[in-house]
Amino acid sequence: MATFDFDGIPLYYEDHGAGAPLLILNGIFMSCASWAAFTPAFAAANRLLLLDLVDQGRSGQVDFEYTQELQERAVVAFLDHLGLEQVTLCGLSYGGEVALRLATRHPERLSKLILSNTCAYTSPWLRDIGHAWEFAMASHDGHAFFKTCIPYVYSPAFYEAHYDWASAREELFVRSFGPAVYDAFARLTRSAETFDERAGLPGISVPTLVISAEHDFITPLANQLELVAAIPGAHHVMIQDSGHAAMYEKPAEFTAAVLGFANAATEGIKVL
Amino acid sequence: MATFDFDGIPLYYEDHGAGAPLLILNGIFMSCASWAAFTPAFAAANRLLLLDLVDQGRSGQVDFEYTQELQERAVVAFLDHLGLEQVTLCGLSYGGEVALRLATRHPERLSKLILSNTCAYTSPWLRDIGHAWEFAMASHDGHAFFKTCIPYVYSPAFYEAHYDWASAREELFVRSFGPAVYDAFARLTRSAETFDERAGLPGISVPTLVISAEHDFITPLANQLELVAAIPGAHHVMIQDSGHAAMYEKPAEFTAAVLGFANAATEGIKVL
Amino acid sequence: MATFDFDGIPLYYEDHGAGAPLLILNGIFMSCASWAAFTPAFAAANRLLLLDLVDQGRSGQVDFEYTQELQERAVVAFLDHLGLEQVTLCGLSYGGEVALRLATRHPERLSKLILSNTCAYTSPWLRDIGHAWEFAMASHDGHAFFKTCIPYVYSPAFYEAHYDWASAREELFVRSFGPAVYDAFARLTRSAETFDERAGLPGISVPTLVISAEHDFITPLANQLELVAAIPGAHHVMIQDSGHAAMYEKPAEFTAAVLGFANAATEGIKVL
Amino acid sequence: MATFDFDGIPLYYEDHGAGAPLLILNGIFMSCASWAAFTPAFAAANRLLLLDLVDQGRSGQVDFEYTQELQERAVVAFLDHLGLEQVTLCGLSYGGEVALRLATRHPERLSKLILSNTCAYTSPWLRDIGHAWEFAMASHDGHAFFKTCIPYVYSPAFYEAHYDWASAREELFVRSFGPAVYDAFARLTRSAETFDERAGLPGISVPTLVISAEHDFITPLANQLELVAAIPGAHHVMIQDSGHAAMYEKPAEFTAAVLGFANAATEGIKVL
Repeated sequence: MATFDFDGIPLYYEDHGAGAPLLILNGIFMSCASWAAFTPAFAAANRLLLLDLVDQGRSGQVDFEYTQELQERAVVAFLDHLGLEQVTLCGLSYGGEVALRLATRHPERLSKLILSNTCAYTSPWLRDIGHAWEFAMASHDGHAFFKTCIPYVYSPAFYEAHYDWASAREELFVRSFGPAVYDAFARLTRSAETFDERAGLPGISVPTLVISAEHDFITPLANQLELVAAIPGAHHVMIQDSGHAAMYEKPAEFTAAVLGFANAATEGIKVL
Repeated sequence: MATFDFDGIPLYYEDHGAGAPLLILNGIFMSCASWAAFTPAFAAANRLLLLDLVDQGRSGQVDFEYTQELQERAVVAFLDHLGLEQVTLCGLSYGGEVALRLATRHPERLSKLILSNTCAYTSPWLRDIGHAWEFAMASHDGHAFFKTCIPYVYSPAFYEAHYDWASAREELFVRSFGPAVYDAFARLTRSAETFDERAGLPGISVPTLVISAEHDFITPLANQLELVAAIPGAHHVMIQDSGHAAMYEKPAEFTAAVLGFANAATEGIKVL
Repeated sequence: MATFDFDGIPLYYEDHGAGAPLLILNGIFMSCASWAAFTPAFAAANRLLLLDLVDQGRSGQVDFEYTQELQERAVVAFLDHLGLEQVTLCGLSYGGEVALRLATRHPERLSKLILSNTCAYTSPWLRDIGHAWEFAMASHDGHAFFKTCIPYVYSPAFYEAHYDWASAREELFVRSFGPAVYDAFARLTRSAETFDERAGLPGISVPTLVISAEHDFITPLANQLELVAAIPGAHHVMIQDSGHAAMYEKPAEFTAAVLGFANAATEGIKVL
Repeated sequence: MATFDFDGIPLYYEDHGAGAPLLILNGIFMSCASWAAFTPAFAAANRLLLLDLVDQGRSGQVDFEYTQELQERAVVAFLDHLGLEQVTLCGLSYGGEVALRLATRHPERLSKLILSNTCAYTSPWLRDIGHAWEFAMASHDGHAFFKTCIPYVYSPAFYEAHYDWASAREELFVRSFGPAVYDAFARLTRSAETFDERAGLPGISVPTLVISAEHDFITPLANQLELVAAIPGAHHVMIQDSGHAAMYEKPAEFTAAVLGFANAATEGIKVL
């Protein structure tokens, strides 16, 4: 609904509702538009902030290579633009990686941290999968992109049960995405290649929730147990019967976990 | 903080805060007192209602045998006493079984249903474990009761990490519980022996969240997958690294899941 | 070590050792050569038979499209060629699908059936992943092929721990495979696209062992539980901490499970 | 079929078949008689050795307290009695603990080690469960013993599916076991209370297989992952859909895993 200027790059954002601010950072192929169906629930008791990162959605695309350090600065600039001292920061996958950078480098800007289907570093395995994505993106062939990048984002059962929907998305991608979009996706993919926040995890002191998904084949459970083990006091819930895109497969569970953790005084409960 | 009369049995309850009402039904060996540490978080945005069922906590003990049908009527009487048409009903284990009876027999009284570590029926396996509990209870020996009934309520890792706390609770039980308490526990145990709500699950239409725990050895995952599969549209999150008493082992995760589901408009999110 | 003629296609096979015959059918990108390190263990007490299916390894490549029905006929022809009435048949992934066809259509040729990391049908999810493979294969680019098809075959932890080995394999593939190999892989991939043996599973009466792997992201656990549930009396062991290529990641576990089931009188043990 | 004298205690054993020797050590409530149905399969290609430890089955009962160090010495004496330098040693639960003592203190007597549903130490959780068993045993009440000790040995689904069998066993126990048996069980239980072989695990060099079970609620998966992580080169297979008594619930899988690992040259397979 608005844009702001980040070092000459226009970044698109949305600002819904009122209350304690909650900023959600998208997964790599997502955009603010991905959250349309969630907005009423999320903005009911919170100020919901959505942001298209550099090369995402309606934000500007760039003609240079970068790392997620750029996205980290973009988020800080966004908070400064809004004059927000602190937000609850929720990141999904790529957005979770950016959120982790904020948590280790700008902890004063976070009141709580929520990491959905996120890893602590880009392993050689995930990096090589990213290389497969880049081959498909470089072809500028929408079908090659979709088949290479999308099925693994979902659990097999969900993908099969909603195959008409998946196929319609494939056609939508083919129709809507031009070479510039695929090139932007490739830059985003490369920007995460060197991601490694493992050393910073023990220093995170903001209350943290890790949301994993039973059938996540992009950032599998082991990745998220690593976050839980290394971040002091980290909490963890798993969404059952869901793949990597838990917010799409299990929107109610995802929403309950995020809003429940964001808004409840979870840290003060001492039962022992 | 108050009692009301249920068919001549005084039932103790607590009524905290204001907002959408949330009634929590205790597990078998719990009472309103178990929730003291949770009350600030739960009553921050909701009217939190706690109730000691028949033979629990500060409620009256009886001199006759009963089934959970009595507890179901007690809950209805409690809602009537407060003049509440509807509540979000959250039940844990034994309390979840009573909540299931409400959901199938008095669905109009529930706005949402949350089942934590609950099963759809008392299997022969669980019934025979209940018989072991009864042997221990009949001895009126607090140590026999504790060792027979309590370790399995927790995950091995939690029990070991908090062994001093567990031992202190054992001593507290031995000091505090007299024969009347063990006899009440035994009646409660027997009251669940014939529990079987499986036939009613497909008729449940209230939005439902199932909360399971990774290391639940009383109502293991299979029990809860049965609920998820049979209750139309049921949602499911799993609390990792926790035993049956998830609210004790993982209070933040439990609280986030319950309040998130209770208060968010989870059912209106249509992403497909 | 030898070839035989199958409808004009030369099929390469190996015949090691003596004893009860055990025929292993390769996964899609495997060949007889994949088993070199296993041969001493497998041929110690059994007659080990290895076979490159049509378009695999040193067997002939063809210039027409086919389904796995061709491979099924190839296996029957192989058994006839050797004059073998019955074998213990062990199939991995693609080879497991061919083995399933044998079990439903030629049950008299099997004494036992072992399915490692196999599914009962090619789901839309797996078919679309196959389409991604075909895009990469059609490029005849060895790096695109490797990155698109191989990382997901392994668990992330194994791939990372053995990254030098994986990279050396990538270079080997790039050096060794020409367009004809990639075209053969593509035909193999397409030959499995319509695979669906679900209807036949309840009719399988040969003793069956399903071997699954904890981190199998090609034929995940759900696929193999489907086999276990549908094949009467099927047995099931899971290899922990392994991806789809369980025989590579956990050779000792794989070998123990296969030889243990192949050679022990497992079906006569009645403990109840 | 025979006894030998161990420090004045007659120990019963069985010696079946011929071939590489395989010695199986019983779980706590088992005896040589538990293996009757398995003997044909196990003795087909091996010399199968079964042994009732002190206070088990037909072996002598003692009038003093002891630790598993006594059982360790009993096993060494048994091997000496038979003049066996080395055996493949397979232990289940209590027997696995004794086997671990052998592996750390008498490694030269083992050619391979197989640990089924075993832990590295008696945790406070398991020790307190043992105390519950002792309360029940001290009552000399067969029903109290059965209900307290037996349901948790099985998975809920198996127990329910075979409830007639379980009930018949309960009646058999009640009829067959007198006070002396319950007192022997209690001594066995106490003998494991101080068990802790964690320090010795990194020194184990004999090829080792860990067999875990999906629904093991006595020695849950975490216990066995600890063994796998600490014993150099340890292998691991999991028997799905089974409780602690995997050999009863899944005899074919148990037998295949044990015989496959015992008899195959698993350690020489180098695929990388």
